[in-house]
Amino acid sequence: MIQPVMIPESVERARVARLATVGADSRPHLVPICFVVEGSVLYSAVDRKPKRSANLKRIENVRANPEVTVLVDHYDDDWTQLWWVRLDGRARVLAEGAEREHALELLAGKYPQYSADAPDGPVLAIDVERRRSWAHGDSRP
Amino acid sequence: MIQPVMIPESVERARVARLATVGADSRPHLVPICFVVEGSVLYSAVDRKPKRSANLKRIENVRANPEVTVLVDHYDDDWTQLWWVRLDGRARVLAEGAEREHALELLAGKYPQYSADAPDGPVLAIDVERRRSWAHGDSRP
Repeated sequence: MIQPVMIPESVERARVARLATVGADSRPHLVPICFVVEGSVLYSAVDRKPKRSANLKRIENVRANPEVTVLVDHYDDDWTQLWWVRLDGRARVLAEGAEREHALELLAGKYPQYSADAPDGPVLAIDVERRRSWAHGDSRP
Repeated sequence: MIQPVMIPESVERARVARLATVGADSRPHLVPICFVVEGSVLYSAVDRKPKRSANLKRIENVRANPEVTVLVDHYDDDWTQLWWVRLDGRARVLAEGAEREHALELLAGKYPQYSADAPDGPVLAIDVERRRSWAHGDSRP
């Protein structure tokens, strides 16, 4: 049995993260995401009513290659304040169903903007399998 | 002849960006970076005196697959203020030489921290080949 990965509160509290996926052509793709954490799963919604398939690059990538990475970091010009947490995992695309609905409720709880205007695209569920953290003072970034 | 990609001033001014590379195993890798822009090239230094090869994952990835993506974004809880710029390019590893020295001078000009303590690892030079930008009010993120 795989031990669930503990996701630190500093990540849960963060308002934005960056999600990297990999295309079938082996090119990386990178977007900022709003997200919510439950246990060792991270949920992120695709903004509502996408009109062009190009906008769903992250979804297309994940369907071909579910390995993704999420980074939460803190920047400050005082470099003694720097830290980051990187979460590697496998993503699932939730086009519909109870888990998607639950994720949307959690997202609306964290982001009031979503209460007023719920995303109606798919939700990405990322099952986190590995955590790597760094903070200034640690041996190496 | 390839037209050089114009990198907006909002990117040049940003203090931090996120760099995605892809491993030989097709997994994405993601780190926050300090960087400087000159023309359509983006330079980023590896912090000094790396002691373990694991710390050079981005370098190892780039040597195997030079396709990288850099994201600069602005988050605000007022979502009308959101924007991001994504730069796709090919990375070169500068282990030594005049271009590396020049990049370190540019970096020290932007980040006083580097003047006091110059990085002595390799410099990544990213030749930007494509820019994608988004801001709230544009058709789609």
